[in-house]
Amino acid sequence: VYRGGRLVRDVRFPTSLEQHGSDAMHTDPDYSAAYVVLDTDSGLKGFGLTFTLGKGTEIVLCAVKALAGLVIGKSLQEIVSNFRGFYRLLTSDGQMRWLGPEKGVIHLATAAVLNAVWDLWARAEGKYHAMYLSIQDPKQIVSCIDFRYITDVLTEEEALDILVKAQEGKKQREDQMLKEGYPAYTTSCAWLGYSDQQLKQLCSDALKSGWTRFKVKVGADLEDDIRRCRLIRKMIGPSSTLMIDANQRWDVAEAISWVSRLAEVKPLWIEEPTSPDDILGHAAISKALAPLGIGVATGEQCHNRVMFKQFLQASALQFVQIDSCRLGSVNENLAVLLMAYKFQVPVCPHAGGVGLCELVQHLILFDYICVSADLRNRMCEYVDHLHEHFTSPVVIQDAHYMPPKDPGYSCEMLEESVNRHEQKKTELLA
Amino acid sequence: VYRGGRLVRDVRFPTSLEQHGSDAMHTDPDYSAAYVVLDTDSGLKGFGLTFTLGKGTEIVLCAVKALAGLVIGKSLQEIVSNFRGFYRLLTSDGQMRWLGPEKGVIHLATAAVLNAVWDLWARAEGKYHAMYLSIQDPKQIVSCIDFRYITDVLTEEEALDILVKAQEGKKQREDQMLKEGYPAYTTSCAWLGYSDQQLKQLCSDALKSGWTRFKVKVGADLEDDIRRCRLIRKMIGPSSTLMIDANQRWDVAEAISWVSRLAEVKPLWIEEPTSPDDILGHAAISKALAPLGIGVATGEQCHNRVMFKQFLQASALQFVQIDSCRLGSVNENLAVLLMAYKFQVPVCPHAGGVGLCELVQHLILFDYICVSADLRNRMCEYVDHLHEHFTSPVVIQDAHYMPPKDPGYSCEMLEESVNRHEQKKTELLA
Repeated sequence: VYRGGRLVRDVRFPTSLEQHGSDAMHTDPDYSAAYVVLDTDSGLKGFGLTFTLGKGTEIVLCAVKALAGLVIGKSLQEIVSNFRGFYRLLTSDGQMRWLGPEKGVIHLATAAVLNAVWDLWARAEGKYHAMYLSIQDPKQIVSCIDFRYITDVLTEEEALDILVKAQEGKKQREDQMLKEGYPAYTTSCAWLGYSDQQLKQLCSDALKSGWTRFKVKVGADLEDDIRRCRLIRKMIGPSSTLMIDANQRWDVAEAISWVSRLAEVKPLWIEEPTSPDDILGHAAISKALAPLGIGVATGEQCHNRVMFKQFLQASALQFVQIDSCRLGSVNENLAVLLMAYKFQVPVCPHAGGVGLCELVQHLILFDYICVSADLRNRMCEYVDHLHEHFTSPVVIQDAHYMPPKDPGYSCEMLEESVNRHEQKKTELLA
Repeated sequence: VYRGGRLVRDVRFPTSLEQHGSDAMHTDPDYSAAYVVLDTDSGLKGFGLTFTLGKGTEIVLCAVKALAGLVIGKSLQEIVSNFRGFYRLLTSDGQMRWLGPEKGVIHLATAAVLNAVWDLWARAEGKYHAMYLSIQDPKQIVSCIDFRYITDVLTEEEALDILVKAQEGKKQREDQMLKEGYPAYTTSCAWLGYSDQQLKQLCSDALKSGWTRFKVKVGADLEDDIRRCRLIRKMIGPSSTLMIDANQRWDVAEAISWVSRLAEVKPLWIEEPTSPDDILGHAAISKALAPLGIGVATGEQCHNRVMFKQFLQASALQFVQIDSCRLGSVNENLAVLLMAYKFQVPVCPHAGGVGLCELVQHLILFDYICVSADLRNRMCEYVDHLHEHFTSPVVIQDAHYMPPKDPGYSCEMLEESVNRHEQKKTELLA
């Protein structure tokens, strides 16, 4: 049974001061979170969050409070024994669904609440293991997924079939992950606001630490992009992997011509070339760039499984970038992982921000161990900021995510960090 | 220059008590609004709103307050002289766009604020006319539109060209509208929660008042739908027009089979057969139902111009249902009207709720007078609830919307109504 307590808090880090996270559309992000703590009568707590960029986090808090009435008073058992029903309850309330449905603020709030439920479930008595180990039984997995609106590409039976088949070799893959970890790439070297000197130093340091996959922000100025991309390609050499990310800066035709100019640095993908809503636009860009050997990646602002379904149907992306906080938590991400598998499109999660690495590592471990059984063209984003605020921060070894060992979903923050960075209502009014 | 005053209020009407507005997905809506009042130093006020279904309206208020910082302190002249820039300012704030972008709560809040700006502009000194008369000059119209992400189907030049060509015959169409009004259809006769006795009585009354176009809610139970639709078709006769509306109840295959069973009552369209995000799903449904002579209508939850663009590109709808409060106010609706014209798909606005009829009549009058010059297959939704709360309620004559004559955008509410129905914060906590 949940009690209220301090259900949700507004935590903001002043990352904009040093241009960390700066890109062509988000020039001054203050990485922030709506941080949810679910108290239970047993004393056990569940921690969840959704990521934001600063201003407006208070709106997400307001939405979490509006959803609270559907959560408080329910037992964990009641929730997880009909997790699909509970997901539907949160996302399809007859009055509140008008505010989405399943998109924007209300869906970010849903993610924060459900992330906390998944954390609690993994910590609950009798389990007490890392979250990714909670999603192991095929029947239980499909019972968490709301298949509404996706049955034209994935039915419950098909999903179950995929999961059952992937049971083979599961133990070996789990052991492999414990030993080697999951491959990662770094975005920390080349934010748009960094100077050339900073880029060089960061690339040099990263290479020494074993990184071989690098992402560069582009889209503000073409000549500047060419210069910066050449510089980084030169630093990392021809055998390392380079990705570029425009953060939605272009219209369709502009995306094609701009990226064509950058083809010389041989990027693996162009990320978010245009509006995250533009499935057909991404399809046109994918088609135009395929002859250049450049794929299209998107997903960090793809707002639900219905959108991902269409991106896959339309061959509009070649890399699926799931997000642990944009989609409706683990439940909806499971649906997307299974659809991506069906279409044989690799999943390369979005991470960074605050807590996104901590959360999404569980999802990508699950994907490898229980769904795709494949590492080709797969890697998980990594950004080396703000991990120090978590009780169980991610562990990176030789550019790989090492599987989390502490119980839960890894997004419990240090109480001291929360207290120090909490945005008070009075500050907002000032 | 704007002052703060009481910027935004939470107004809720207990419509669920009598099942007004009930459909297959929204069984108990309490028609509500985030109601914005912009005060100016001159004493002139601008009134705007966005429509909601009750619970969660306080989240939209929170978002309006978050946007307020971008509005307060600006002069009306400053805003409208670069209206495209102001639209971009509200929708693309580097931190807040993460919460959308251009969708969900933050976009509903943008609509409320911008609706108030358009109201203010029409009332401003030297104009003092109904809002639809504010959008007459082709160059000024295109200067209000953000073409970002839609230039692959509509450029500024093309838009200007359409508007300039439509200048011909404008005066006659305006006179025609003042005389005859714009054709309407009624949704008031057949909400899902109404009894057969109620349906019959309401149909009979509506026929007497001159209505010839009727919409019926379906989607909860097939046998019940068949019975209700037959009953209504019998009441209205073979020459009247019947539309059916499932409010997103089905998956793609189910939509096709269910609607095929209802083909015998000869519906003109099936509205919202599935997820409002499912462009490709709607395209599949459109294709399957075309041989039955049934079109697909959608749009009341289509969240921005990028989505409408794709619905048009994919031939996924045969009737475009714009909404005055879901899209980013007049600015974004202008883009959609022009795209619909380019694809030669008729626009039949969504209305009802609270204030939606008052607002959208301006947009559809503009569409006829300044864009489409066509009434074939076109009509505007009408629902006869809650108009008594407005200072300039819609005027319906012989099933037509008569052009509003009072200055502004017609959504100023009676102060007494706002006071009586305002949801206080203390009530929310109780």
